[in-house]
Amino acid sequence: MNWQPKNPDFRAFVERFFAAQPYLGLLGAELGRVEPGLAEYRVPLRAELTQQNGFLHGGVTGGVAEAVMGAAAATLVPASANLLGVSYTINLMSPVTGEALLARGQVIKPGRRLMICRADMFGLDAAGEERLCAIAQGTIAMVDGGQNAPTP
Amino acid sequence: MNWQPKNPDFRAFVERFFAAQPYLGLLGAELGRVEPGLAEYRVPLRAELTQQNGFLHGGVTGGVAEAVMGAAAATLVPASANLLGVSYTINLMSPVTGEALLARGQVIKPGRRLMICRADMFGLDAAGEERLCAIAQGTIAMVDGGQNAPTP
Amino acid sequence: MNWQPKNPDFRAFVERFFAAQPYLGLLGAELGRVEPGLAEYRVPLRAELTQQNGFLHGGVTGGVAEAVMGAAAATLVPASANLLGVSYTINLMSPVTGEALLARGQVIKPGRRLMICRADMFGLDAAGEERLCAIAQGTIAMVDGGQNAPTP
Amino acid sequence: MNWQPKNPDFRAFVERFFAAQPYLGLLGAELGRVEPGLAEYRVPLRAELTQQNGFLHGGVTGGVAEAVMGAAAATLVPASANLLGVSYTINLMSPVTGEALLARGQVIKPGRRLMICRADMFGLDAAGEERLCAIAQGTIAMVDGGQNAPTP
Repeated sequence: MNWQPKNPDFRAFVERFFAAQPYLGLLGAELGRVEPGLAEYRVPLRAELTQQNGFLHGGVTGGVAEAVMGAAAATLVPASANLLGVSYTINLMSPVTGEALLARGQVIKPGRRLMICRADMFGLDAAGEERLCAIAQGTIAMVDGGQNAPTP
Repeated sequence: MNWQPKNPDFRAFVERFFAAQPYLGLLGAELGRVEPGLAEYRVPLRAELTQQNGFLHGGVTGGVAEAVMGAAAATLVPASANLLGVSYTINLMSPVTGEALLARGQVIKPGRRLMICRADMFGLDAAGEERLCAIAQGTIAMVDGGQNAPTP
Repeated sequence: MNWQPKNPDFRAFVERFFAAQPYLGLLGAELGRVEPGLAEYRVPLRAELTQQNGFLHGGVTGGVAEAVMGAAAATLVPASANLLGVSYTINLMSPVTGEALLARGQVIKPGRRLMICRADMFGLDAAGEERLCAIAQGTIAMVDGGQNAPTP
Repeated sequence: MNWQPKNPDFRAFVERFFAAQPYLGLLGAELGRVEPGLAEYRVPLRAELTQQNGFLHGGVTGGVAEAVMGAAAATLVPASANLLGVSYTINLMSPVTGEALLARGQVIKPGRRLMICRADMFGLDAAGEERLCAIAQGTIAMVDGGQNAPTP
């Protein structure tokens, strides 16, 4: 896909969008690649994020998928927009192993109000090798109002 | 639904299943009602769990939905079983407000290997009033092997 | 749920909405109960609708789920609205057996533009007994423009 | 993806699998490309398949997505296997226009029992130009027993 960003400072916009979400900080997420229609998050694996077998919890994998689809959508919106998740679906195919979860979100169709996205979720090993572990798709709504609106 | 548990100690099983998941501890989740085919989690709202507007992050709502469907499934399996999320879908309908997120998972169809579940996600206010904020459905796989397998 | 219809003639509206969809005719669908926020379709089982084992095709079950969620949404919209499916998810739990597929759609949250719905899909036997075979949830968009716009 | 088929006659297997599904005949579907892990269906647009505005019904788009993911899965299974849809999700992004719906299914992860797939759904115009209109993902179960089991 070859989308045209509406905001020339889309990278700074995504950085602020990322930094403004405390939950991503709690997970220890890091922002990676940011391109028009694409964004990546990286979450180093650690014990606090696991389920009963020591694997990354599926709720983390799904939650990061939702978040990175929002970040991908954020690359294409005007600077005045806010983004809210509407729905998402994830198929958890195999345990996420290695050093980190790599989440790659992509906008498939940027609508006026709804952005349809996909995410690929990888286990990333020390050598930087990616192993696809989960796939997601979802809808992100673009709404008016700055992303940094005061907390209610 | 009126399901018959295979494990007479299903409540203790679900308590161990809950306690064995570090991610639920990171979220601050608490185990609530446990009945055959039904389980509830409660997550007190706090700043670390929010997105850019101070609302509960959709990734938390979805992740807890996945987790509580697993807990509902855990009420119906033999003591030797382990449970793994396969897929889930969530529709985020309105911001979760109040004092806590209340997640209610229910088994809709307990298969031999796959348990089909739904979850209702509520905002819970100080008076205990429930407001439905998101709905989910998903598939949990029942696999052999104890839930308390050592962490890799 | 206890929703208030915006259109006092909502039943006639749903009947026209149903009759205007040739695909429902191809399936042999019949309109059943219509109440505020709820609609039912009934599809008599026949060989043309089956998959390789003689069971109702999962694509029919899913397609009728999408359609009946639209009909449920149609009970709550103004007479000037049109309805378009945005997304849906279905879990196929067991083969649909009996005499007919019974599809029951319900609006869970009627938004200004997006209606979040669930559908329960049953096999219906000769005695009218319902057996739950699939569950769905989805999003229907309410857009301007009459439902009976001329075919392009 | 570069999957290895277990059945050297996978193309003939998919042709029989396709021909054995009466619902695909009712839709007027045609089998297109068949490669290891990939299959295509083509459904010429016609009035019987439309919704109230003359567009292809979303229930058709979703149902064909489910079917073509099954066909993609069928390229990778042993000759003794049968395939059943477990769940699928579709995002309908824009009306399917042109001469035909083109459905392209792909296996993302072939498991021992569950095959995780994606589908891209295109409107195909007279010049063969593809326009992406919907995206899907889903789970297909591989079960024992021939695909041509007698109709119950």
